[in-house]
Amino acid sequence: MTDAKTVSEKASPKQMADAIRVLAMDGVEKAKSGHPGMPMGMADVATVLFSKFLKFDASRPDWADRDRFILSAGHGSMLIYALLHLTGYKAATKQELSNFRQWGSKTAGHPEYGHMPGVEVTTGPLGQGLATSVGFAMAERHLAAKYGKDLVDHRTWVVAGDGCLMEGVSQEAITLAGRYQLNKLTVLWDDNEITIDGKVSLSDATDQKGRFKAAGWAVKAIDGHDMKAIKSALAWATKQDKPTLIACKTKIGKGAATMEGSHKTHGAALGAAEVAATRLGLAWQHEPFELPEAVDKAWKKVGRRGATERKAWEARLAASSQAADFTRAMKGDLPEGAFAKIDAKIAELVETKPAQATRQSSGAALDELFAAIPELIGGSADLTGSNNTFVKDTPIFDAPTYEGRYINYGIREFGMAATMNGLALHGGVIPYGGTFMVFADYSRPAIRLGALMGVRAIHVLTHDSIGLGEDGPTHQPVEHLAALRAIPNLLVFRPADTVEAMECWKLALEHKTAPSALALSRQKTAAVRTVAATENLSGKGAYELRAANGAAKATIFATGTEVPLALAAADRLEAEGTPTRVVSVPCFELFFQQPKKYQDSVIGRGTVRVAVEAAIQQGWERFIGEDGGFVGMSSFGASAPAEVLYEKFGITTDAVVDAVKARL
Amino acid sequence: MTDAKTVSEKASPKQMADAIRVLAMDGVEKAKSGHPGMPMGMADVATVLFSKFLKFDASRPDWADRDRFILSAGHGSMLIYALLHLTGYKAATKQELSNFRQWGSKTAGHPEYGHMPGVEVTTGPLGQGLATSVGFAMAERHLAAKYGKDLVDHRTWVVAGDGCLMEGVSQEAITLAGRYQLNKLTVLWDDNEITIDGKVSLSDATDQKGRFKAAGWAVKAIDGHDMKAIKSALAWATKQDKPTLIACKTKIGKGAATMEGSHKTHGAALGAAEVAATRLGLAWQHEPFELPEAVDKAWKKVGRRGATERKAWEARLAASSQAADFTRAMKGDLPEGAFAKIDAKIAELVETKPAQATRQSSGAALDELFAAIPELIGGSADLTGSNNTFVKDTPIFDAPTYEGRYINYGIREFGMAATMNGLALHGGVIPYGGTFMVFADYSRPAIRLGALMGVRAIHVLTHDSIGLGEDGPTHQPVEHLAALRAIPNLLVFRPADTVEAMECWKLALEHKTAPSALALSRQKTAAVRTVAATENLSGKGAYELRAANGAAKATIFATGTEVPLALAAADRLEAEGTPTRVVSVPCFELFFQQPKKYQDSVIGRGTVRVAVEAAIQQGWERFIGEDGGFVGMSSFGASAPAEVLYEKFGITTDAVVDAVKARL
Repeated sequence: MTDAKTVSEKASPKQMADAIRVLAMDGVEKAKSGHPGMPMGMADVATVLFSKFLKFDASRPDWADRDRFILSAGHGSMLIYALLHLTGYKAATKQELSNFRQWGSKTAGHPEYGHMPGVEVTTGPLGQGLATSVGFAMAERHLAAKYGKDLVDHRTWVVAGDGCLMEGVSQEAITLAGRYQLNKLTVLWDDNEITIDGKVSLSDATDQKGRFKAAGWAVKAIDGHDMKAIKSALAWATKQDKPTLIACKTKIGKGAATMEGSHKTHGAALGAAEVAATRLGLAWQHEPFELPEAVDKAWKKVGRRGATERKAWEARLAASSQAADFTRAMKGDLPEGAFAKIDAKIAELVETKPAQATRQSSGAALDELFAAIPELIGGSADLTGSNNTFVKDTPIFDAPTYEGRYINYGIREFGMAATMNGLALHGGVIPYGGTFMVFADYSRPAIRLGALMGVRAIHVLTHDSIGLGEDGPTHQPVEHLAALRAIPNLLVFRPADTVEAMECWKLALEHKTAPSALALSRQKTAAVRTVAATENLSGKGAYELRAANGAAKATIFATGTEVPLALAAADRLEAEGTPTRVVSVPCFELFFQQPKKYQDSVIGRGTVRVAVEAAIQQGWERFIGEDGGFVGMSSFGASAPAEVLYEKFGITTDAVVDAVKARL
Repeated sequence: MTDAKTVSEKASPKQMADAIRVLAMDGVEKAKSGHPGMPMGMADVATVLFSKFLKFDASRPDWADRDRFILSAGHGSMLIYALLHLTGYKAATKQELSNFRQWGSKTAGHPEYGHMPGVEVTTGPLGQGLATSVGFAMAERHLAAKYGKDLVDHRTWVVAGDGCLMEGVSQEAITLAGRYQLNKLTVLWDDNEITIDGKVSLSDATDQKGRFKAAGWAVKAIDGHDMKAIKSALAWATKQDKPTLIACKTKIGKGAATMEGSHKTHGAALGAAEVAATRLGLAWQHEPFELPEAVDKAWKKVGRRGATERKAWEARLAASSQAADFTRAMKGDLPEGAFAKIDAKIAELVETKPAQATRQSSGAALDELFAAIPELIGGSADLTGSNNTFVKDTPIFDAPTYEGRYINYGIREFGMAATMNGLALHGGVIPYGGTFMVFADYSRPAIRLGALMGVRAIHVLTHDSIGLGEDGPTHQPVEHLAALRAIPNLLVFRPADTVEAMECWKLALEHKTAPSALALSRQKTAAVRTVAATENLSGKGAYELRAANGAAKATIFATGTEVPLALAAADRLEAEGTPTRVVSVPCFELFFQQPKKYQDSVIGRGTVRVAVEAAIQQGWERFIGEDGGFVGMSSFGASAPAEVLYEKFGITTDAVVDAVKARL
């Protein structure tokens, strides 16, 4: 913490904050769209945070031990762009600011991870920045336990608005953070009493402070425009043994000449007249995106505040025996030999051919991977035994040491998925988490955001079809495979047996810039991979599992637990004189990335094509064409034992054989 | 409220509760799957509730003014099945109980709405029963305002577990209920400190009572096995001016010989030995599903408790001038002439041809419908102006009168959708609610549950593509049309202009047993329906909007804002000598319900087929075949003005023309 006077001898903190206000107002005005109200309201808080507390060095946005600043209220993106520009982040040029919300700029409407250095996470879908921050804070605690305070010792600061706090996921996030006493996490709540439709009181009367206290947080309320109060509250936050909420009472659009405090400043440009009047009121005589020299100097100095500390940290890292491992883990590279054990196991499995549920196969994969890849940190949303996510003897992640690698996420699927995104974004860990596949609907917003950001979070989704049985249609995925496959940049795996499950786990780990979803069965299924392969066949997305006896007349495509059924149908057809191929399709996305020639060879046009999957047809036409057969579901499931359901819904060997014959 | 002694002179309340315990244990044992722990733990609370407070008449499960009992912790389904059986619901036979979780039984693994009378809502996906109950309680308040206390005066009772309370949606639900002071809503929290993975404390340390207080609830904590305390707490709940939480400290699996209090009773049969020992401990000498006569009699008397009150209510209804209207509304029938105004407007629109955003078209439809259908009750998740969900001069739904028909749902998309399910299930109202289409991911679990239950909830989803523009990829739906179309029994409409929007609104209202999603544009689009039609063309799902000039060589399919683009492409192709049809596809689901002959006539095999939609291709193969062209998205969007995005992502007239030409 640096004293204010040394930061700027000429520009006052008020002027520094006004620089944010004007930049935000001007950026939105130029774009003719955006949200000026929030950055203007939170400018004072942000100024104190950045100039006195946030550990960062603008010249090194990737400094591993920086504090993380997360703008959960992502619509106020000009706040972070202004801060990055003012403090001298190289990428945050004046040009970028004046190109706010335009094609090809780094200053997207909402902060996008990977566009502008300094943006730690993509935000905008409300509540998720806050929920993701829990993952950042967990990663910090875990890595501090592993590598020591010398290498890992930083905080996570979140700016959240009323919208973030109204979203249900915020409850999952704050109760997780409270349970794990993540005392290096601070939420700065922009308590401006305004939402898009008007006053917060229109739709909410929650005592937010009481609610956070009930979740195990330390809470303080301040005037968010009182620099002294802000400073003292931030200092207080750094000394608590719980996560901290600072309720900052602010005026939205603070400083706007006539609109201060109005919801009209929330989501639209203020307009030329208001902008001019506001300039006048703030005594700001500079052109758009131009800064007074003293203000510019003061902010640039803030941007250099952390340089000394950063250099000292680099020296400590250089001297550390853990340097190589730490650097590798933070880069997201796997340890050397990470797959040695699992590859040996795969070689063994083609011999032993175990019949087991693919959720067990996934558990078996974890057994081989967990020790080999110390970055793996897993958990389940209260379905540990069902999800097979726990590796025997793993210590539990918990206060005070946090060295455990298994997280009891509780019944918080969405919160878990967002936390996983945060863990992955922080780096140094590779998160996986389990729930029933049907509850991917609950976590979907975070799965999508992970796909958009391109983070390696591995979603273990068990009980992947009507094979779940008696729990019934509320718990039986039917449309979920299609719905997940619809998300761009998400790898959806549905392995057929233990060999494929292990291959899919490897692929999920190898893809550093995409999340994965593993669809896994509750019910036992036969081994189908009984011949040693020289490569990871699942990596092709789809492959000929069994060739036809002679020139193929039919091709049967299947995934997961339906592959044995496809093989049985092929047996029957072959016996009846119809040469039939069987294609296993563990991953649509990877298949459609293969060369056209390979795709054509697998798809087998000219043969009768039938697919079988205990799910809806949507998407399968790319394999079977318009006239192909599909054996699967076209409605919700029902409550009954699994084998009865397969029979009643007509997902049987007979049905597959008939579908082929009808087309021969 | 009836005195205990008059209910049963022989069976004690304890024995009555034990009947629930034994039935639950036996049902699960027979099925070899299920959740005995919760029903056994909450048997005492349920006994007091049913025998002294719940207003119901087992012989009339459809009595409109009954109290609603909602088992949010749906895994404990044997609790409700046992209660319905014990109190004499005709459908809840011994046979059904012993067929628990079997094909064709009414006793599904989780309570399914529409299977067993007395089950008010499908529960199981945690938190949603609680969230849905808010809709029930809102409907009651609104209808009481409309029809008076004589016809509408009942309570909503919810049994919720730790899982329900950990789910984020519970926060949205309780803050909504708190804001609207729904004092006839009571949550009975099964505070048993156990989740599937073990103790609640493994993953949660929330002060639930403090949290509910912060949400504006009145809170009481009791011993959930102390009948006297239960009775006094339930009486207290009926006298509060806020929604009420009763924290019932219970032992999971209460009464089980050795497993009482253990998470092992949560989700599996107890096993023959434990069942026998438990029988012994409870001095229960009857065979499975057999009841002691005194217990049976006492419970049957409970089932008749409300008969007098029900008859009195029926007399009041018969005497009421509102009888016909109330009965019609509760049946879900639309008022006579409901569509007169909108039909006249449609006739006008083919002449006036307004160019406007389809969200405005939807607003225009509401303008015509809202007065004609007084059951319509709408709202928005804090995007009223953007969603065009507000009809001018509509009073706001709020305490103390609740007569308003516009609900400020706040930033609670999931909570809103679940509330809408509750409103629809209660009956007497037809709910709609708006948010951005991308946030259908947030509300998806409730949209799905609505589809599974078959309730008429209308989801108004605006900003339906990259046409949303500058807000960027976090806010731009790309995969959402496919993902929503994947949900069985959900009607997904994407109207092209105001005429189609009005047609789609009519269809949404006419389909009483399916929810609808309306995908609506932010950006302006030209009118495409410029010729009067004799029927609701959107009702066919897809139809030839423009015939080819001569024998068609090409067919272009489009939806929503891409229909004008398809028409422009057809113009170009026709000019170049290629006869081209244009097919508008407002609703996949309705199209695939049409006769095969109609489908074939629309699809136009033998012509070159190209589809254009600013979304991913998945699902379009059913129109364009394997070799057809698709102009749309294959990645997430970006932040820039809408027209720039259409150009950059190649969704243009040129692209459609090229796609056709490449295939001619």
